[in-house]
Amino acid sequence: MVNPPWSEVVRSALAEDIGRGDITTNAIIDAGLEMKAVLVAREDMVVCGLPVFSEVFRTVDSRIRIMPHLPDGSGALAGNEICSVRGPARSILTAERVALNFFQNLSAIASLTRCFVEKISGTNARIVDTRKTVPGLRLLQKYAVRIGGGYNHRMGLDDGILIKDNHIASVGSIKEAVRLCRDGVSHLHRIEVECDTLAQVEETLAAGAHIILLDNMDLTTLRQAVAMVGGRALLEASGNITLDNVRQVAETGVDLISVGTITRSAGSRDVTLVMMGE
Amino acid sequence: MVNPPWSEVVRSALAEDIGRGDITTNAIIDAGLEMKAVLVAREDMVVCGLPVFSEVFRTVDSRIRIMPHLPDGSGALAGNEICSVRGPARSILTAERVALNFFQNLSAIASLTRCFVEKISGTNARIVDTRKTVPGLRLLQKYAVRIGGGYNHRMGLDDGILIKDNHIASVGSIKEAVRLCRDGVSHLHRIEVECDTLAQVEETLAAGAHIILLDNMDLTTLRQAVAMVGGRALLEASGNITLDNVRQVAETGVDLISVGTITRSAGSRDVTLVMMGE
Amino acid sequence: MVNPPWSEVVRSALAEDIGRGDITTNAIIDAGLEMKAVLVAREDMVVCGLPVFSEVFRTVDSRIRIMPHLPDGSGALAGNEICSVRGPARSILTAERVALNFFQNLSAIASLTRCFVEKISGTNARIVDTRKTVPGLRLLQKYAVRIGGGYNHRMGLDDGILIKDNHIASVGSIKEAVRLCRDGVSHLHRIEVECDTLAQVEETLAAGAHIILLDNMDLTTLRQAVAMVGGRALLEASGNITLDNVRQVAETGVDLISVGTITRSAGSRDVTLVMMGE
Amino acid sequence: MVNPPWSEVVRSALAEDIGRGDITTNAIIDAGLEMKAVLVAREDMVVCGLPVFSEVFRTVDSRIRIMPHLPDGSGALAGNEICSVRGPARSILTAERVALNFFQNLSAIASLTRCFVEKISGTNARIVDTRKTVPGLRLLQKYAVRIGGGYNHRMGLDDGILIKDNHIASVGSIKEAVRLCRDGVSHLHRIEVECDTLAQVEETLAAGAHIILLDNMDLTTLRQAVAMVGGRALLEASGNITLDNVRQVAETGVDLISVGTITRSAGSRDVTLVMMGE
Amino acid sequence: MVNPPWSEVVRSALAEDIGRGDITTNAIIDAGLEMKAVLVAREDMVVCGLPVFSEVFRTVDSRIRIMPHLPDGSGALAGNEICSVRGPARSILTAERVALNFFQNLSAIASLTRCFVEKISGTNARIVDTRKTVPGLRLLQKYAVRIGGGYNHRMGLDDGILIKDNHIASVGSIKEAVRLCRDGVSHLHRIEVECDTLAQVEETLAAGAHIILLDNMDLTTLRQAVAMVGGRALLEASGNITLDNVRQVAETGVDLISVGTITRSAGSRDVTLVMMGE
Amino acid sequence: MVNPPWSEVVRSALAEDIGRGDITTNAIIDAGLEMKAVLVAREDMVVCGLPVFSEVFRTVDSRIRIMPHLPDGSGALAGNEICSVRGPARSILTAERVALNFFQNLSAIASLTRCFVEKISGTNARIVDTRKTVPGLRLLQKYAVRIGGGYNHRMGLDDGILIKDNHIASVGSIKEAVRLCRDGVSHLHRIEVECDTLAQVEETLAAGAHIILLDNMDLTTLRQAVAMVGGRALLEASGNITLDNVRQVAETGVDLISVGTITRSAGSRDVTLVMMGE
Repeated sequence: MVNPPWSEVVRSALAEDIGRGDITTNAIIDAGLEMKAVLVAREDMVVCGLPVFSEVFRTVDSRIRIMPHLPDGSGALAGNEICSVRGPARSILTAERVALNFFQNLSAIASLTRCFVEKISGTNARIVDTRKTVPGLRLLQKYAVRIGGGYNHRMGLDDGILIKDNHIASVGSIKEAVRLCRDGVSHLHRIEVECDTLAQVEETLAAGAHIILLDNMDLTTLRQAVAMVGGRALLEASGNITLDNVRQVAETGVDLISVGTITRSAGSRDVTLVMMGE
Repeated sequence: MVNPPWSEVVRSALAEDIGRGDITTNAIIDAGLEMKAVLVAREDMVVCGLPVFSEVFRTVDSRIRIMPHLPDGSGALAGNEICSVRGPARSILTAERVALNFFQNLSAIASLTRCFVEKISGTNARIVDTRKTVPGLRLLQKYAVRIGGGYNHRMGLDDGILIKDNHIASVGSIKEAVRLCRDGVSHLHRIEVECDTLAQVEETLAAGAHIILLDNMDLTTLRQAVAMVGGRALLEASGNITLDNVRQVAETGVDLISVGTITRSAGSRDVTLVMMGE
Repeated sequence: MVNPPWSEVVRSALAEDIGRGDITTNAIIDAGLEMKAVLVAREDMVVCGLPVFSEVFRTVDSRIRIMPHLPDGSGALAGNEICSVRGPARSILTAERVALNFFQNLSAIASLTRCFVEKISGTNARIVDTRKTVPGLRLLQKYAVRIGGGYNHRMGLDDGILIKDNHIASVGSIKEAVRLCRDGVSHLHRIEVECDTLAQVEETLAAGAHIILLDNMDLTTLRQAVAMVGGRALLEASGNITLDNVRQVAETGVDLISVGTITRSAGSRDVTLVMMGE
Repeated sequence: MVNPPWSEVVRSALAEDIGRGDITTNAIIDAGLEMKAVLVAREDMVVCGLPVFSEVFRTVDSRIRIMPHLPDGSGALAGNEICSVRGPARSILTAERVALNFFQNLSAIASLTRCFVEKISGTNARIVDTRKTVPGLRLLQKYAVRIGGGYNHRMGLDDGILIKDNHIASVGSIKEAVRLCRDGVSHLHRIEVECDTLAQVEETLAAGAHIILLDNMDLTTLRQAVAMVGGRALLEASGNITLDNVRQVAETGVDLISVGTITRSAGSRDVTLVMMGE
Repeated sequence: MVNPPWSEVVRSALAEDIGRGDITTNAIIDAGLEMKAVLVAREDMVVCGLPVFSEVFRTVDSRIRIMPHLPDGSGALAGNEICSVRGPARSILTAERVALNFFQNLSAIASLTRCFVEKISGTNARIVDTRKTVPGLRLLQKYAVRIGGGYNHRMGLDDGILIKDNHIASVGSIKEAVRLCRDGVSHLHRIEVECDTLAQVEETLAAGAHIILLDNMDLTTLRQAVAMVGGRALLEASGNITLDNVRQVAETGVDLISVGTITRSAGSRDVTLVMMGE
Repeated sequence: MVNPPWSEVVRSALAEDIGRGDITTNAIIDAGLEMKAVLVAREDMVVCGLPVFSEVFRTVDSRIRIMPHLPDGSGALAGNEICSVRGPARSILTAERVALNFFQNLSAIASLTRCFVEKISGTNARIVDTRKTVPGLRLLQKYAVRIGGGYNHRMGLDDGILIKDNHIASVGSIKEAVRLCRDGVSHLHRIEVECDTLAQVEETLAAGAHIILLDNMDLTTLRQAVAMVGGRALLEASGNITLDNVRQVAETGVDLISVGTITRSAGSRDVTLVMMGE
């Protein structure tokens, strides 16, 4: 059950694509035919998604065997063989597209995350993800962020306290919002508050929150916030972070930099499943 | 069940994000507080996703009311109000992120599709999608393609016959593959065959297939294929279609141009939910 | 998941019959007792349903082993042994009735289909099924039709275009209905139109549909339709087809003859599971 | 949840038939079009299945309204209107076939049951059903038996003790089998034993069972069993009961006559849904 | 599927506790680490729950092996080893709490049941349970009652007829209520009636019911009821049965004594899972 | 979906109790009969569970109306009316037992929690619950703890970091275990470590953990721990906390006292549903 946590999303994706059956393959391919295929990179990438790629094939047919050559997290160059797939031809052809759809998206996320991570190497900041993920794929996409060298922000609304402007507005002050969380949520959770101004940062510190999200601040303001806080809380920079500006943001001294792009706009890395007969 | 077909994916996405509850909102926001919010475009786009956006809010709380200003398919300019959301503040804040995640992806797909469609306006070709969709979101993403002015290719492996190289290799000839499909699949399905060369196109015509997929052919070869076929089959061009080359491809005279990018790499259009209190 | 597609219906049928447990068997039969049983035909039949028969037993207890003697599609005479079942006695007795309920219905369908198929042997027509199947058992019943030598019409409403009188009435003409389908449905689907008169057949041909369903026409009219169409479309005869008149219908020259009886009124072939102790 | 108990089977049947959508209807019929239809009998029958017929339409579209004219249990003559259906045309056309598939089978069962019941009118016997039902439809089919004037035997293996030959063989005697059930099953269940001979009937009486199933006995033996038991247990006759012999069986004095045919081979009564526009 | 019937409740309990994963264990424990653990009693008890205890571990990780030392129904003394658990350390730590939660409750029920059973040893009465069980755990808790030497009353509302005061009031008499059940429910069910007075007992006997529930009667009245009935019906005593008064109740001569406490207030027996490394 | 989070457990509990239907009630009670009932306390208690009590009735029949007199958290005396229930008699009788099973357990938990809370009134400590809950009822039981005035510890293994002896043993030191959590889990989680000795408390403080669980320490050691930590971490006392010793534990100065008894051994408070006809 618990292992792997994505078995349900794999089942849904297969049901969505296969419906009542792969009518072309079932009509043409002999049920007894065996086949070997190799997953090949067609551009450079950080490999990511082999467990779910395998799960797709195994769900279609438990007789399919996957042999990984480059594990998740490896750098693959265009032309490198990532893994091989062996088993009944019908099942491999039926599962192919869904397996690729997962793998291509996760490798794109891991690859883009690594670009961000490398940009800030040598600084003390960490790249973290957001809740801007594709519906249904959050656990997988956050896994890809870790494979790419990033860190995970909260997994969902129950996994961390993050007080935003609307929360604050509804009770009148950061102080009161923080107090309500301290009282109403388990003592195991830290409290993070989103701030737009240095005045709010000041107020948040006074309220005893543990983490401050600095939203859409320019570099100068970020630096002032870092100085003002002086290590009394963790600082997270957020908003319009790109490969071009991420290093400058990191050098302001913030602890965390959250980037929505790495999950929601990574697109797809190009790989192909080369069929080889038996 | 039947209405709407995406209720299950909405439920999964909410369960994924909310888990045991929005701990921040539940601790801070009074259960009786009402709120109004407005969905605002932050860049130009083809609006797409209002039905699923509404379904997200209604699933969280049936008391939430959505009032659309710009229906799906409208062009919105940065700053335009797309719809308003009114209801219990707790529920609106809890549902917000998931609703946006759907809407932003679908609007991006519709917007990108329209770009392709406009590029080929005046030709006889149609833009069609592929099975390169995000796992779990196929029906929604294919809906977005239609909203953007494109057409749908098959919805899944059971929804159309498409004979590819591996199918052909396994039985030795296009002729035999076509025959097997004619015999083994319901008489209601047409037969499409993927061809890499003009020789294969010839063979496919002889086998009596109804549609020919011209895979990765250059413009010259495409033109030759169109001439050779002379209307005896539908022709679909596929492979590396971009906004830069799509018009040239359309002008070769093919009937259909399939583009994987519109579903798998459209990313996300920027919108925001502006909260307004009551 | 994909294999077998009827695992869900098997589970439901077992849950329906077993509920909280087989109270008689659990009270009486020792948990360690092993048993062998043989499935025996009590009348002549086309054997059909071994995969689902096996799935029932395996779902109750994965230790049960089924050894087929006469595979699906075989002709069995009264008294022939079809397969043997071996495993824990409790589980075999608990699963017996559900397994038989499936098998008896599917064998009846395959047997009746074969009667129709044999009646038209030597003609060019095919026997096809309809959507008049028992709710929940469509995939299984359509499988039985194929085992009996018949062909499948569409699997469901999404698996083929069939324009009927109400569709036509709502838009005013066959021509317009065909045009809307050509525009609104994937290019991979052919278009079939139901006609009650020769005038409609004429109109359908002009509209460019690919298949014409000739509904409840007498033999003379069928012959006229065949002559009028002259191979420009496939022709399907439908309505009140019986074993008595099917050959005459086939001899009119139609391509397809659809028969609702084979799935909805085939009843049950008589088989018994003879228990043999160990 | 609890009302109605068949909502799950209705959902499955609709999913099975509709899949990704009714492509013909969606392409042709305007979404705003309303329609009225009337369910008409095409042969004489006992009406049965209106609740599930309605549930099918309501599940597809909650706006559809059903107005019954002849409630379940009524006798309808060919040509009689059974109920009317009013609502969005798209939804009515999409739901039609599944609704009819349920209704036709249930009316056939109720009608055939009534034939059996009428044959034995004036005797003290009751017609009861068996577990020989179509997988997935047991609750519905047993409901149809009651509508036809029959009575229900156990609903499943957990709903009644029925000791059969294999149970007896495994513990050596009827006496021991009865004792094990008395000890191992709740005191609320009566105990029924299947007997092939009068000697077994004797042994069953001595063991203190409450009901005796007389399996495949001829009329003479049935009469002897009735005389021998003299009211000390309920007697159920079973095996090869037909409309031709059921009255003679009833006149032997047995209390219950179980008939498998009424559920598994009733087939389908002919009704049609006549569409009337608005 | 059928075995074990509690797999669904195990899955729910694990999902409830594990959510998106055991974040502590996953962060700290090496994925390759193996571990052995021993389940040890910390007070005297009747062991109960090993099958579901094992199912919890196997559901988390099929590689975990359980070796029972004291089977269900054994008496364990404080300090006794009940079973050992061996497998991947991560999985064992993740599953531990849920496995214990089940085991501790079931052992408490079996232990308390045995106390009641021993109190009445030598009498003819049986201890039976009620429907006062923890929602979701009925099958498991009723199993624990049997392990403790008790008997099961009906498993649910469909598993036995029990006519209570509200049923009687709605139709005016016990006689009519009994008649309705005899007519409306399968002949395999006995009929039990709840009585508060001896007059009702009299009326119930006359109506031909098979079992009489004597609700909240004092010992004198119970004795009178036993004398009055004289074996013509089974008698069940119910209401405020404690370890202090159960023997006196049994000695009145009733056949069954139902005790709600054994399932709903048994609490938890103290066991611990001692981890031993590998 | 999200509201209420216990709809699934309510459905399961009803399915478990009702199965194929309440055979007694359906046979006797007229389908049109309306009824009123009142929920009455039979002992003093903290009322808890009205939302789930209502959900049970509404799930069985949406026409049932619940009118609360004493909301959750109220103190009820024996004899007080807690709420009234009005609607179809069949549905009320069918739902009664399941609704009571939930309510009685939750009220028992809230009542027992309040006893603990009152014992420590005036101190700075809080009563918190544990993961020792009944499988399937965690959210409900933790809700009851809050209603009783207690606080919730983590909801599950993904909702908080708690490092225990086995975690520490596997990596050699508290310091390393804490480091791994800081690196591997989101920055929003605090880190709690279970300590058996003051030496471990020292080590935990040095490692920078935020919360220390003092397991099974005597009062003297607890006091020493409080002094040693001096506010640098939250302190939680755990193990063998009873109503007799809880105040002494609170007076040592710890912040949190976790009590397993309140969820797993609270048993059931006595209430009854008094039926009143209409």
